[in-house]
Amino acid sequence: MASPTAARADAESASVTAALADYVSRSELDAIPSDVVEEAKRALLNYLGCALGGSIEPALDVAIATLAPYSGRPSACVLGRAERFDPLSAALLNGIGSHVHEYDDTLPKNYIHPSVPVASALFAYASANPVPGPDFVHAFILGFEAESRIGNAVYPAHYEAGWHITSTTGVFGAAAATGKLLGLSTRRMVWAFGLAATQAAGIREMFGSMAKSFQPGRAAQNGLTAALLARADFTAGEHALEGPRGFAAVTASSYDLGRVTAGLGVDFDLRENAYKPYACGLVVHPTIDGCSQIRARHRPDPAAVTAVRLKVAPLVLDLCNKRDLERALQSKYSIYHAAAIGLARGKGGLNEFTEEAVRDPVLARIRDLTTAEPDASVTEDQVRIAVDLANGETLELFVEESLGNLKKPLSNAQLEEKFRDQAVLALPSATVEHLIERSWAIERLEDVGDLARATIPQAPAGEPAAGR
Amino acid sequence: MASPTAARADAESASVTAALADYVSRSELDAIPSDVVEEAKRALLNYLGCALGGSIEPALDVAIATLAPYSGRPSACVLGRAERFDPLSAALLNGIGSHVHEYDDTLPKNYIHPSVPVASALFAYASANPVPGPDFVHAFILGFEAESRIGNAVYPAHYEAGWHITSTTGVFGAAAATGKLLGLSTRRMVWAFGLAATQAAGIREMFGSMAKSFQPGRAAQNGLTAALLARADFTAGEHALEGPRGFAAVTASSYDLGRVTAGLGVDFDLRENAYKPYACGLVVHPTIDGCSQIRARHRPDPAAVTAVRLKVAPLVLDLCNKRDLERALQSKYSIYHAAAIGLARGKGGLNEFTEEAVRDPVLARIRDLTTAEPDASVTEDQVRIAVDLANGETLELFVEESLGNLKKPLSNAQLEEKFRDQAVLALPSATVEHLIERSWAIERLEDVGDLARATIPQAPAGEPAAGR
Repeated sequence: MASPTAARADAESASVTAALADYVSRSELDAIPSDVVEEAKRALLNYLGCALGGSIEPALDVAIATLAPYSGRPSACVLGRAERFDPLSAALLNGIGSHVHEYDDTLPKNYIHPSVPVASALFAYASANPVPGPDFVHAFILGFEAESRIGNAVYPAHYEAGWHITSTTGVFGAAAATGKLLGLSTRRMVWAFGLAATQAAGIREMFGSMAKSFQPGRAAQNGLTAALLARADFTAGEHALEGPRGFAAVTASSYDLGRVTAGLGVDFDLRENAYKPYACGLVVHPTIDGCSQIRARHRPDPAAVTAVRLKVAPLVLDLCNKRDLERALQSKYSIYHAAAIGLARGKGGLNEFTEEAVRDPVLARIRDLTTAEPDASVTEDQVRIAVDLANGETLELFVEESLGNLKKPLSNAQLEEKFRDQAVLALPSATVEHLIERSWAIERLEDVGDLARATIPQAPAGEPAAGR
Repeated sequence: MASPTAARADAESASVTAALADYVSRSELDAIPSDVVEEAKRALLNYLGCALGGSIEPALDVAIATLAPYSGRPSACVLGRAERFDPLSAALLNGIGSHVHEYDDTLPKNYIHPSVPVASALFAYASANPVPGPDFVHAFILGFEAESRIGNAVYPAHYEAGWHITSTTGVFGAAAATGKLLGLSTRRMVWAFGLAATQAAGIREMFGSMAKSFQPGRAAQNGLTAALLARADFTAGEHALEGPRGFAAVTASSYDLGRVTAGLGVDFDLRENAYKPYACGLVVHPTIDGCSQIRARHRPDPAAVTAVRLKVAPLVLDLCNKRDLERALQSKYSIYHAAAIGLARGKGGLNEFTEEAVRDPVLARIRDLTTAEPDASVTEDQVRIAVDLANGETLELFVEESLGNLKKPLSNAQLEEKFRDQAVLALPSATVEHLIERSWAIERLEDVGDLARATIPQAPAGEPAAGR
């Protein structure tokens, strides 16, 4: 650990940016273990489903309507949308769509939602340029690792300071992944990381608004921009990560850059990726899980609930202490709403975080009578729930491992089910099944652009294609 | 002063974002003092000259070649260039061109180079949309104030942490200025500030590379993006500045948000703007000034110099301790190069920071025998110089106030001269004089787009317009 004021270019840390760049630049797919490739496919299937689920959201509609006039030649597509854009615009818009439901993946070790920044840039690029499946999966794995390892180095101080670590590290991941596809040399990859560091941004204050999903979208777009500029010898400082005014020193009060390179090429953070069963902030998942279990077991009448008392990890209240919900997106960060949907509906899908759900008087009533107390003995995968009923009874449950965490991961079948639930909002069932099949075979596709283009909704006969 | 961990939405700070947004949204030009309007014109003339001087630089050439394929409909122009772009791309490219020479203005109180992010966005917008002179100048003044006041609130902790304060606060300035032109309501201006905070980025580690000028360019582009999205009701968190995870708390270990609103509408930071006489980092200016004075007074033979001993403000070595110059841009951050050009050439114009200058053996020799010692009794406007000669003589000088600082400001005539020196690199003399005249009258122009378009170089007869 080094404090930023003590940061200096000592022999070890001076080479971190170069070492990471060199690894990404020289990596060959043969050297990636097969279980990592399999996990990459799970991550990409999950990503694609989230992108389709979010493709009809207002945040994406507004962004498209506003930014379409500024898009360049329409060579790329946005997943699940009929309009076409340049690849940089498409990267941003893919990021908004795939993150807006808060349904994407999470690395519990550093709270990064890793796939959105990396895959949003890759699919945008691949929709405009031929990219063979093996190259795509390889680039995704490398971008994922770069992002997560940089996150490991600055977590938790960086996150606790208020940075949205998904976007601040995601820009490096997007730069690494697209830089790999562009064939950047080590030297240019170093510049790409410098240009990524130059654009690393995104603060947690924006959680619960459209600006939240804009952040990983911008990270995807900025990472691709960094790679394109670096390829053209647009120079940057060579010590993006370890420099005395570099990313780590500037954005974290303590950090350990050794974690960027330790076990590089051997240990893969993809193995520790988790997929959300609920469409909201991760730390309220145990509460939805537990309340859903209570509902399934005891079928309490929601109207008979007189109090819900939660004991939660302290981070939960730091992140999700939203009680007065003015926007639907805020409900994804409300521990009180989480308890309400679990008890009253027994699930946390897309429909539980809509304007309708926020206004539902049954849910509003339970939100109001729910309290949450921080308890340092409760982990972020856990919750202690007590539900008081009008007849004097109290239903109690301790959730030890929340559904979807690393010890209770979603199966491939559950991931497919999650994909279907979201994708049918945008596409016909037959197309959805076709996409699932193609997605599982992504590492064998001749051109991943075909997969991206297969997500474009077809206009009904007689309507113009761009008329949606 | 509040520490970030102690940050909370108390009665006073809770309203800072809203108060600033409300002021910008409701401000009327009649209420701006006339001396502030006059200073805005000096800043804009200086800005335009820098944009023209930088318009032929490799950093801009590379950025244009790389990003042109991603530009939307070419409704806007980049100052001094024949190619056309969409306004967002033009904002970025204007920012690179106008900052690449490090010749733009500086607020000594917070080290922001204030005009580049704000004016780059405004000229890009105005080149594509009709903007009357009064509206343009008004928007510039408001953007400048928003940027500088947010800087005042977080300076010096924010800058000392390693943030490039020009880009991190510039994005707010660009959002305020273009948001004013777009007629944003207070509520939407609040969102624009949220979207600006979401994109605030840029680290000092990149100084001495092309990524440096990319930063204020991106700030201009991101600020305009923020204003456009906010106009379309793309929502953001409402406490961009004062929230517990907002810009101030996340990026500064101590801050005073009261400085954002104190004297708003009465005190204007434009009155404290300084214009650089030398094309490099501000803190080496006293050394160039002093060494130039020694040269003018004593005409020492450069070959007879045996040592140059400087006593400088500690910040100088923090920022400009670059001795081994691999890139021309690095020479702008070398206190040793500053001494060399002062003693050997008596000036610090664009030509003193080229590859040629870096390789000049006369300059290299003096760089090598120059030492600089931090001295807390020396201010950043000062330097104590001792030049040892082969004959045993020592020439000494104490610079008390550096040329171009607030006590020795460049006159309007000197600003015009600086404009000419740069603009003739891109445009014929007659056009340059025309631009100077139009620029002094900017607040009376019917459409500032005419001024922007007048900077486009005309192709010689027989050559296509886009062929430069």
